[in-house]
Amino acid sequence: MPSMRAIVYRVAAAGPDDVSGVETLLQNGLDPKSVVAVLGKTEGNGCVNDFTRGFATRSFEALFARYGVSSASIVMSGGTEGALSPHWTIFARSQVAEDAGRALAIGTARTADLPVEQLGRVGQVAMVAAGVRKAMADAGIDDPGDLHFVQIKCPLITLARANEAAARGETPITRDTLKSMGYSRGASALGAAVAIGELDLQDIADADICNRFELYSDRTSVSSGVELRDHEIIVLGMSSRWSGPLSIDHAVMADAIDTQAVRATLSRLPAGSITAVLAKAEADTAGMIRGKRHTMLDDSDISSTRHARAFVGGVLAGVFGMTDIYVSGGAEHQGPSGGGPVSIIVQRDG
Amino acid sequence: MPSMRAIVYRVAAAGPDDVSGVETLLQNGLDPKSVVAVLGKTEGNGCVNDFTRGFATRSFEALFARYGVSSASIVMSGGTEGALSPHWTIFARSQVAEDAGRALAIGTARTADLPVEQLGRVGQVAMVAAGVRKAMADAGIDDPGDLHFVQIKCPLITLARANEAAARGETPITRDTLKSMGYSRGASALGAAVAIGELDLQDIADADICNRFELYSDRTSVSSGVELRDHEIIVLGMSSRWSGPLSIDHAVMADAIDTQAVRATLSRLPAGSITAVLAKAEADTAGMIRGKRHTMLDDSDISSTRHARAFVGGVLAGVFGMTDIYVSGGAEHQGPSGGGPVSIIVQRDG
Amino acid sequence: MPSMRAIVYRVAAAGPDDVSGVETLLQNGLDPKSVVAVLGKTEGNGCVNDFTRGFATRSFEALFARYGVSSASIVMSGGTEGALSPHWTIFARSQVAEDAGRALAIGTARTADLPVEQLGRVGQVAMVAAGVRKAMADAGIDDPGDLHFVQIKCPLITLARANEAAARGETPITRDTLKSMGYSRGASALGAAVAIGELDLQDIADADICNRFELYSDRTSVSSGVELRDHEIIVLGMSSRWSGPLSIDHAVMADAIDTQAVRATLSRLPAGSITAVLAKAEADTAGMIRGKRHTMLDDSDISSTRHARAFVGGVLAGVFGMTDIYVSGGAEHQGPSGGGPVSIIVQRDG
Amino acid sequence: MPSMRAIVYRVAAAGPDDVSGVETLLQNGLDPKSVVAVLGKTEGNGCVNDFTRGFATRSFEALFARYGVSSASIVMSGGTEGALSPHWTIFARSQVAEDAGRALAIGTARTADLPVEQLGRVGQVAMVAAGVRKAMADAGIDDPGDLHFVQIKCPLITLARANEAAARGETPITRDTLKSMGYSRGASALGAAVAIGELDLQDIADADICNRFELYSDRTSVSSGVELRDHEIIVLGMSSRWSGPLSIDHAVMADAIDTQAVRATLSRLPAGSITAVLAKAEADTAGMIRGKRHTMLDDSDISSTRHARAFVGGVLAGVFGMTDIYVSGGAEHQGPSGGGPVSIIVQRDG
Repeated sequence: MPSMRAIVYRVAAAGPDDVSGVETLLQNGLDPKSVVAVLGKTEGNGCVNDFTRGFATRSFEALFARYGVSSASIVMSGGTEGALSPHWTIFARSQVAEDAGRALAIGTARTADLPVEQLGRVGQVAMVAAGVRKAMADAGIDDPGDLHFVQIKCPLITLARANEAAARGETPITRDTLKSMGYSRGASALGAAVAIGELDLQDIADADICNRFELYSDRTSVSSGVELRDHEIIVLGMSSRWSGPLSIDHAVMADAIDTQAVRATLSRLPAGSITAVLAKAEADTAGMIRGKRHTMLDDSDISSTRHARAFVGGVLAGVFGMTDIYVSGGAEHQGPSGGGPVSIIVQRDG
Repeated sequence: MPSMRAIVYRVAAAGPDDVSGVETLLQNGLDPKSVVAVLGKTEGNGCVNDFTRGFATRSFEALFARYGVSSASIVMSGGTEGALSPHWTIFARSQVAEDAGRALAIGTARTADLPVEQLGRVGQVAMVAAGVRKAMADAGIDDPGDLHFVQIKCPLITLARANEAAARGETPITRDTLKSMGYSRGASALGAAVAIGELDLQDIADADICNRFELYSDRTSVSSGVELRDHEIIVLGMSSRWSGPLSIDHAVMADAIDTQAVRATLSRLPAGSITAVLAKAEADTAGMIRGKRHTMLDDSDISSTRHARAFVGGVLAGVFGMTDIYVSGGAEHQGPSGGGPVSIIVQRDG
Repeated sequence: MPSMRAIVYRVAAAGPDDVSGVETLLQNGLDPKSVVAVLGKTEGNGCVNDFTRGFATRSFEALFARYGVSSASIVMSGGTEGALSPHWTIFARSQVAEDAGRALAIGTARTADLPVEQLGRVGQVAMVAAGVRKAMADAGIDDPGDLHFVQIKCPLITLARANEAAARGETPITRDTLKSMGYSRGASALGAAVAIGELDLQDIADADICNRFELYSDRTSVSSGVELRDHEIIVLGMSSRWSGPLSIDHAVMADAIDTQAVRATLSRLPAGSITAVLAKAEADTAGMIRGKRHTMLDDSDISSTRHARAFVGGVLAGVFGMTDIYVSGGAEHQGPSGGGPVSIIVQRDG
Repeated sequence: MPSMRAIVYRVAAAGPDDVSGVETLLQNGLDPKSVVAVLGKTEGNGCVNDFTRGFATRSFEALFARYGVSSASIVMSGGTEGALSPHWTIFARSQVAEDAGRALAIGTARTADLPVEQLGRVGQVAMVAAGVRKAMADAGIDDPGDLHFVQIKCPLITLARANEAAARGETPITRDTLKSMGYSRGASALGAAVAIGELDLQDIADADICNRFELYSDRTSVSSGVELRDHEIIVLGMSSRWSGPLSIDHAVMADAIDTQAVRATLSRLPAGSITAVLAKAEADTAGMIRGKRHTMLDDSDISSTRHARAFVGGVLAGVFGMTDIYVSGGAEHQGPSGGGPVSIIVQRDG
């Protein structure tokens, strides 16, 4: 009986606009329609004026347009500090003849358009929770415990959209676009946490969003984009309806040097080679790691997010023996303060 | 029969001028005359305009002056990128009643004043080689294989010194102070390599210094200072004439993520707690680690030395579970390109 | 009839700890007791982790201690971006035999200790207003229109001080030291504005402080320090009870390129040579100058304060033909948004 | 009798890929075939990892492709430090019915393909000299004294091109691409200097290129690009065969604050409004301006080129009262050390 099969490629990038490695895959037979998502690590500063993300996104849009497709979710994370290596991770899926077994599953979903006045409020949390459940169903993941990575792209508030809501008599949570991005990411992450069962919807109030950061999802990554009004959701987990050599699990590092948590997860996974590592890193806001002061938050020359990616990149590269790891900045309700989730995809030997 | 005993303290620093932790040690009985060296990690950029080093040095000089001593070697290395923690490592030694066993030994030596025209030339290499041998004898280290860390402070060429040499009819290697610092460090490192037996003096020509970087010492760290005309040399190793619970060994990382080399050294050391980790880090000049591109050398916003310390700091912090590690920038003839020496001091359990 | 005489020196600094130029002045006859204030421009980043300020302050304290005085106000401003030149401006005053004429006058005052619970509130505004009036009286400046520069050093809230207030049943405005510095600077600047007559005390409410930034003094510069509990106030202006060749006036630049305002002030001053230029610079928060976008606030690699000092430093250096200008970062209630005050001291020809 | 007419637009850019302002010009009647060149200031760091230049170039290529043209020279200069404003300067030319008068003239030329082995050598100098003369002829500029701005885009050496030369038995000056860019820019600038009459071809030896920097053109700006093997040359000057309200002249600033030179040039130009200012800025390599130390070359946190653009940007913005000025980094044989050329285009009043 046929089954679904996930394929994951890790492709080196010589620059933010170097999509040649992915084009080679397409030329060599990768079905463009099978591509679900591109997660990119580009070599910008990962902060406000990081144009490598837009340059990379534009380059992939042009590539996919040449192949007649436009549906893949394109998510770019800037910052390859330290010896992290710029690369693209390509997620694809297709039907194969083999019988299903327990294997990496990829599901996607889009929600309805989000009414602007719900952004950053419980309405968005509920909408995303439903969307993540839909993506889980799409992936054939029944048990939230089998879900190990959620990627969400969410909308933001532009001035035009705020005015449009006001015209309907509604009051958006903010008219400041930058702030709206944080609210949207925060509410989306909490929505994922609800779907996963990490939190209960009725325990979340509007006032908690971007405020009570002890509420979080330990396996969710969110970015916001001006180009959409709904949510693009991708989930990765294990399902017995899929086949193939790939498995996924995740660890939650309690602090920036918690290699023990990572090694424990690695030991639960089948022996094999590392296909992808997807991690989050941020500076502990208390300014301490295991009682020793760090200086990341006091450095006015280098953003703490850059310090954190370089350092946690080193921690993880030391464990995995590779430098093309996806380490993105931590953010609103996405993992514990100072620590962070690490999702690991392994290709079983033999 | 009495023996020598090495004591090593790792003391947190709340800022470049915070010597209060060391003052507390002195108040609590540490004999100021027993202090041989202070190795400091300060929170500057570790590059040209890093004034945290001078500020820290001045603060220690004032502290030691209050205690009536001035002989300790003060070596400051700027840069606590990532989550590295600013701290001082204090090396002291004194005679104890216990019988000798095999233990960490600390030796020191000073050379004669270096004629300016020998700086950066084979003359300096030979002088330093003799100095390191003298420090080894002082430490009671007979076998160079027992030597695991050499710290050298060397002179530089000022305009006045260059003129003074010219007046004697001699030609210094350069009249550029900054360049002279590199030459002096390079020749000093090669001198240590000769003493250790890593290189043969007759295989080194003037033209090799700061040129043939495949010649290096894998356990030597050198800094240059305007305040001296001779060389201050400190060696750490194992000696059977010393006693106490401390042991030292060193690893040479083949690349920035070579945790295997570090773990192998750690497994050779007695079980116990980590007293100090002294490492060097630098960006691989080929721009690659295990075939994957890094962007450290192309980043015009952050110096590659800062990237490298943050990243290798993370690699080592992940292995050792601590962040107050001494990671300094790699340099002339001090370790292999892209990799680096790691000296580990362990306090034996029980 | 004898009169007071102000003397102002602009002394080059080869580094943050280079006080040798000032020592030379003292050796050549400058009376150490006549020194009222040192305003320094040091080559740090002017932000959180700028240790050049502390290093310079420590170096001046040690210098003055060697000369047996400790009363001069030492104010360090980090940041010599662009081609700004690190330097010290020394303000001194003494009695001379000459008759008074209209000339630069320097006055100082200290307030009583500020009760912690008044910091950042109207109580501090009123206390500083009284202090500035006292300094004006000390300077013999009767008309606030003759006042052209006010420098205030104000206290901050440490945890210990907050606890001490709490023990008395009082609630300090914040327990966060960094925030308390902003509140203290803001309230101090508003106090100066009241004394000068720019604002009316009864129009200022607690809630306005660090909130309604359209309230400001156009000639006041404030820094906060942990070492004091009262306020050190220095005023510069014109008085008919002083003598000598120096005059002062100030301009308010409406935006970062408003050279017209500066030239207008310069034309009101007597012909002569420039003795000192004391200016403030900050990025316009609207992100525009004369309708054209600037990118200072979006640059995550370089702080906007550094951009602003470099740029406004260039604007002023172009006008004055010199680079040792005191350009410090704008701040709470100190000058209009995006523009800034420029105080100019001129030594009359002949 | 019909004449040629130059048109110059200064168009704001909201980001490196914002070509909408130029598209509006095209929609409103600007003939795409009349566009000769785009000079862009983008908001990157202007150094190695500045991807805003490529992103902008790609965006203009796509725009022009939509309008069916591809011949305009696209030159991007990164770095809008301080309050400099990102913008595009569009140079166009077309025939008009009006009689000729003395007015701004624009000429272009392309050379033959440069044999790789001539790059960075006198062969390239001669080829560019001929090319600049051809562009002058195209512009109808007879007297080199009427030439006030030369922009050259030159080739570089890739590994493939070096190998190709080697196969022919030739030895390229370097196999290092980055170094080849400097050699190509240097030889091109010297070529322009020869055409202008600033230097004599027979006084230039291969060894002078990128070595004797006292040889330079005071009105030439060069960039190198991988996409061409010949040279794209654009010259701006005054010609009596053109018509219209635009005039150009240039100043050479002797140091970074030499506003006098700029004002002198401005006073020679007709009264009117500023159409464009094209300047070069770099840090004085002696570390001094008018005897006062600057810290640009010692700052390991911010590149000296960024400091210099911010500061000189301020100097010029103060003079011209505008912030959308083209200030690019100085370079090989392009202007005097520490100073720089400033070309000014003015639109005559009335």
